[in-house]
Formats: sequence, structure tokens, C-alpha cells
Amino acid sequence: MKTAKGVNDIPPSRKILQNQVVDVIRRAFELYGFAPLETPLIERWETLSAKFAAGDDSDALREIFSLQDQGKRKLGLRFDLTVPLARYVAMNPNLKMPFKRYEMGPVFRDGPIKTGRTRQFWQCDADVVGNSSMLAEAELLAIFQEVFDKLDLPVVIKVNNRKLLNGILSQVGVKDKEGAIISIDKLEKIGVAGVCKELTCTSQQKDDIFSLIEPGISLSALKKKITDPEGLEGVKELEELFKYLRKLKVKFKFDVSLARGLAYYTGTVYEVFAKKGISCSIGSGGRYDDMIGSYLGGGRIVPAVGISFGLVPIMECLDNDDVSSTKIFLIPINVDCLGIAQQLRGMGVNTDVASKKGLSKNLQYASALGIPYVAIVGEDEVKKGKILLRNMKNGDEKLVVVEDIIKWLS
Amino acid sequence: MKTAKGVNDIPPSRKILQNQVVDVIRRAFELYGFAPLETPLIERWETLSAKFAAGDDSDALREIFSLQDQGKRKLGLRFDLTVPLARYVAMNPNLKMPFKRYEMGPVFRDGPIKTGRTRQFWQCDADVVGNSSMLAEAELLAIFQEVFDKLDLPVVIKVNNRKLLNGILSQVGVKDKEGAIISIDKLEKIGVAGVCKELTCTSQQKDDIFSLIEPGISLSALKKKITDPEGLEGVKELEELFKYLRKLKVKFKFDVSLARGLAYYTGTVYEVFAKKGISCSIGSGGRYDDMIGSYLGGGRIVPAVGISFGLVPIMECLDNDDVSSTKIFLIPINVDCLGIAQQLRGMGVNTDVASKKGLSKNLQYASALGIPYVAIVGEDEVKKGKILLRNMKNGDEKLVVVEDIIKWLS
Repeated sequence: MKTAKGVNDIPPSRKILQNQVVDVIRRAFELYGFAPLETPLIERWETLSAKFAAGDDSDALREIFSLQDQGKRKLGLRFDLTVPLARYVAMNPNLKMPFKRYEMGPVFRDGPIKTGRTRQFWQCDADVVGNSSMLAEAELLAIFQEVFDKLDLPVVIKVNNRKLLNGILSQVGVKDKEGAIISIDKLEKIGVAGVCKELTCTSQQKDDIFSLIEPGISLSALKKKITDPEGLEGVKELEELFKYLRKLKVKFKFDVSLARGLAYYTGTVYEVFAKKGISCSIGSGGRYDDMIGSYLGGGRIVPAVGISFGLVPIMECLDNDDVSSTKIFLIPINVDCLGIAQQLRGMGVNTDVASKKGLSKNLQYASALGIPYVAIVGEDEVKKGKILLRNMKNGDEKLVVVEDIIKWLS
Repeated sequence: MKTAKGVNDIPPSRKILQNQVVDVIRRAFELYGFAPLETPLIERWETLSAKFAAGDDSDALREIFSLQDQGKRKLGLRFDLTVPLARYVAMNPNLKMPFKRYEMGPVFRDGPIKTGRTRQFWQCDADVVGNSSMLAEAELLAIFQEVFDKLDLPVVIKVNNRKLLNGILSQVGVKDKEGAIISIDKLEKIGVAGVCKELTCTSQQKDDIFSLIEPGISLSALKKKITDPEGLEGVKELEELFKYLRKLKVKFKFDVSLARGLAYYTGTVYEVFAKKGISCSIGSGGRYDDMIGSYLGGGRIVPAVGISFGLVPIMECLDNDDVSSTKIFLIPINVDCLGIAQQLRGMGVNTDVASKKGLSKNLQYASALGIPYVAIVGEDEVKKGKILLRNMKNGDEKLVVVEDIIKWLS
């Protein structure tokens, strides 16, 4: 008996942490006025493959798990939460705009298995559909800050704009903008020399690019050098966004080299990095004003912008302190402690009761499960309404009144 | 653009209710010492089909969605949460017993589409593996009561034991016990006459069956008539269980006709019905001491017992009061109200801000989304730190200080 290749069980100790992170993210989404949506894990093949019509990414297309229903309809497992969102918007023409929804759940990619990459993984997304104002991305970035503050995880939020990047490349005269963007996006990783090696343009163009894309350059300094109209529009959008971010007291860092790969982004892009621990991004997103409209057809333009939390990398950055959701384990010695168990549960304390006999065996069990407190309940204790509480971390013991127990559980 | 046949989107108004119910269930599971587990939605075909090896249910086998990965491995989508649990137990031989886990998430069945039945639906299960004591089912039934009390949903919890049913049929001399059990299970629906019509045994046997399976008969009255050893064992288990249930103050009803179909149950079975509203069960479960052992092989016996909440029927019984998770919608009139929005969020109030211009358009938007409060924020309000709060249900308006707002939100 094995799991399918490339997918994992999430055992209790890890799922408890995952639930904690998901709860914090959900709380933040709702605090900012986002409503939950659940789309099915199965979609029609046409829906999933629609965005590939232009042949833009055949690797991703091959990574879709395909299946058939009894009626021989071709279906697939969703590979992200954005395509189902576009399909939902297309199916509900009377949806009130802006439509602010969040969705959290598994997506599937039948790709090669690298370290840390699985064929089923959670995405946690919030998107604003139908709002072209920079206020939308400002609130989304405020959610990043809200979540990582709550998780006590110091981060850097890097922000850029694809129009600015496109403008720079136009201004310099680069023809293969897509290729150039992919290379520039690696600046932090491979340095100026590395990017130059990858760029296929002339060395004059390379010099021109890096006279604009200086590492650490401020927006105001860069603005003076931009002449291309699309580039200037990008600057204007960033200026507006930064104004809102300052009002919302969101800390951020402008990074002109940030591109976020070749995805469907059309304007603002952002990526969040943990200040310590892992180097990959733990959150990202951007504005994609063309993608949903392409699902709707009829030349409709539907502005959209979203954020996505990287649940797995976030969990890697956090200490897994609570390996048990159970707070106290009752070990009855020749007595029945169901009454005490119910009393504790009535006070909101997650309580489990030993089902086997033997003190040492039960102590081992509680210890193996990481339950922080054990109470040994004998006849005398039941009579007095007291229990002998043992802190499993330091071994401290104390005879406490059941009603007062919450005080003693740290 | 459509969803795949037989699956549905869960729109915000409904997903909010679903989240509320799932939260209550999860809280109760953890209160009783159950730990969360997440198994993948994809399993190996061998795992999913293992329980069908004996050919016990080919309809269910045909309803498994099958798929392949890139390596041509045959896989399927899980059709319940019990098979993945059995696979998890088999894969983790060092798991501490009893293993008390809960899992909540979608399962898939590619069956005919009836009203209210979808090909993807949530299951919410808690199971105790490795504990043969009736204390295990007693705590599970206490969870039913805890959840339905919290949801303010009056229910009847019906309890029976398969050994008792088997014993009765042996005692009466019925050979086709499986067929008889399927018919007897329908007693409440089709009455004694209906069941008699379905039963294939002699009319003497039918009389004998109904002299034992009297509607409403108490366990003590029935006990006197049982002579079969398996039947007596069932009585003993029920007596023990009822003793625990009384200690845990769980209300229940003994129902000797309850069988729970042909599933893998070996002992206690139970089913929960809402006292008003829909007639189908909203929770169920039982003891299945053979099933996990059959996954482990080697003749190992692993007792197990579980409960399952019917999320969709539970939601049907509840009023959908909160159609919005957003509490207040700010409409700024020629001012910037980001500061007020952040202040409200800092107080934990789910807040959204209008992104379009026009008072009446924004009031319509808030009303369509079901947001209970709207605040119109003008220059004067911002200066005074006050907002004009409108209750969208009754139209009441009040000028309130931002700091005091929580008092005014019901």
C-alpha cells in the first residue's frame, strides 16, 4: 500500500500547522472584504486548455491530469485556481463587480517530481475582478503584510510593473521582450553578468538595459530616464500604488528587475520573500487585465488582480510547535473519568481519555503524540474534583481543581 | 463555459455557511482529541479497488473516476475517506494506537446524477482506529450531539448493533441475511407490510422477525427474547454503550431496525436525523472491525469505528442568514477612507471599501452582496472620526465614533 507517485499524506503534526496558516490567511482575506468560493476540482478539458489555445505553454498543458466521466466527456483536474475563477465569471454574467473572492484548496500538476514539489498542492488565492484601480493591489499587498505579521514571519514585499519593464525593453530596442524578461527576472539569482550572458540582444542594448535596471534603483531616479509611453504608464501606476501603500502603512520594496516569469501579468507584479530561512518566494501575484476577458469572448476587457500564498514554503519558514491539537490527556486509574472529560470539553479544552490500561504505557502514548499535558485521575482525585496535572515538557506536577484548569494550561 | 457535468460551484453565500458548519465540526473533533489528517485526492487504482476484490459492490467500483499519470500508472480519485485512512494505517506501521484522526474534504463518485447528488461532494469523518472499547463510539456519538447543539439543530440519534440484527436473523433461521437486512433497514420508510413484501423468507419467519423487531421496542424488552449468541453479544455491546452515553449525557434512541445498508459494519451502527426539515440522515457511521485489517493483510485485526457528517443535508436544514462575510462597506464621498478601513480591520471588523463612484450604485452593490452595514464617509466624518452607519436591513442610520463601532454592529 502506497500513495500515488508524487502525492503525499499530510500527517497530523503537519496538518495542524497547515490549518493554523490557512486560518490566518482566511481571516485576513475576510477582513479585507473577500468572500469564499469553492470551485470543483474537476473541470471540462476545454476550460482547462482554453488558455493554451495560443500555444503559449505546452509543458503546462501536458501537466494537466486528464480523465473521462461515464459519458466519455473529456475532463481534467484543475492546475490552478485562476482558470476556474475565469470560468465562474464567464458563467455568471450578473455577478456584481468588483467581484472579490478567495479560494483555498488543492490543485494538480502531473509534472516531474523535484524536491519539495508534489503533484497535488494547495493554492491560497484572493483576486479582485472588475476593478482597474491601484487600490485593488494596494489592499492585496496589505493582506500579505497582515498575514505575515500574524505569522510573525519577517518578509520583504517586492513590487514592480510589467508595463515599466516592457517600456524599458522598447526604449532600448530589444525585440525578444519575452526572452529578455525571463532573463532579467533572474537578476538577483545570477547577477548582471549572468543575465548579460543569457540576453540575445546587442552589447549596446545590454549596456542600455543595465543603465536603467540598476539593482536597488528608486522609482523616482528611474522615472527620469524613462521616455517610452508604456514605461511611463507603468511608472504612473506604481506611483499611485505606492501612495496607497504608504497610507495603508504597508512596507514594500520597488524592484525593477522583478518580472514573475511569463505568466499572464499585464501591470503590477509582486513577490514576497522571507527575510530568513528559505530563498524561494512565499507569496506572489499581480495584475492580469486580459486573461478573464479572453474567457468571456466578445472582446470584453475585465481587469483583474490577485495574490497567492505559497502554503508549503510558508510552512517551511515556521516552527512546528504544536504537534498535537489535544491539550490534555486523562489517564484514569481504576475510575471512570468521563465526567471530568466532559467538564474540560465544556470549558473548551481539547481533551482525550486513555483507552488502554497501564500508567507508563499511557504516558508514552501521550508523549509520542506530543500532547502537552497529562492528568492522572484516581479515586481520590475524582472525589475531590481535583486532578494531578503533569506538564509533559518539564515534568512539573500539580494537584489542581478541574474548574481552575485553564489557568494552568499555558 | 460550463462546469463539468455533475459538479457544482459553491458560490460565496453558500460557501460562507459551509465554512461555518465545517468549523463547528472541526472544533468538536478537536475537542474530543481527534487530530487532522489530509490524504491526497488521487490514490493508486489498486488501493481504491482493493476492497472490491471480493466483488462486493461493482456499482461503486464503476463509479470511481480513473486516470493515469505521465508514467502510465493507473490511478483514481478517492470515493470516500475511509479507504485512504486504511491505506495510511497500512503505510505507517509505527502509528500509535488508538489512532484518532479526522479528515474533511471532497470525494468523487462518477454516478448517475439525481437531485441533490453531485459527483464531487464533501465528507467530514472522524474515526478511532485500534480501540475495541464501546467508549470509542460513545465519544463519537457525543460529538454528534456537540455539533448539532452548536448548530442549534434538533436531532434524533438512532443506535443499533449489527451483531444483534445478525443474531435475530440467525435465531429466526433466515438464510439470506444480507437481503433481509437491506429490507429491514427500510422499515421506517415502507412499514412492516412493505418490508414483508420484500423479504424472501417464509411467512412464519416473517412473523418471527417482527415479533422481535417491533417498532419502538426497548433494548431490555428485546433482550429477553434473544437466544442467539451473536445477538446476545450485540445486546451486551449496546448495554455497555448506553451506559457510557448516559454518563456523557448524550440523548439517543435505540432502533432495532437500523442497519445502514450493506457497508462494512460489524457492530454498532448509528444514524442521525433532523427533527424537522429533510427526512434523509444528516450523520451516520458505525464500527467496522474487519476492513482496515484486510488492507494490512497477515490476518491482522484492527478494530475501527467512525462517524461521518452529511455536509449538504446539514446545510439544507440550516437557515442561510449570513450571505456575506463582510460586515461593513465604506462608501467614501470625495474623501479617502483607507485610514478608517484600516482602523476597523485593526478592530477585527471585516471591512470593504467602495471602488466605484456614486452613492446609490454603491448602496445597490452592498445590498446585492448582502453586506449588513454600510458607512457613508464624507469630509466632515473623517475630520470628526465619525461615520454615518446604516443598517441595511431596517434602514436605521446613526452617526457613530469609529472606535465605538463594534457596539453598533449586531
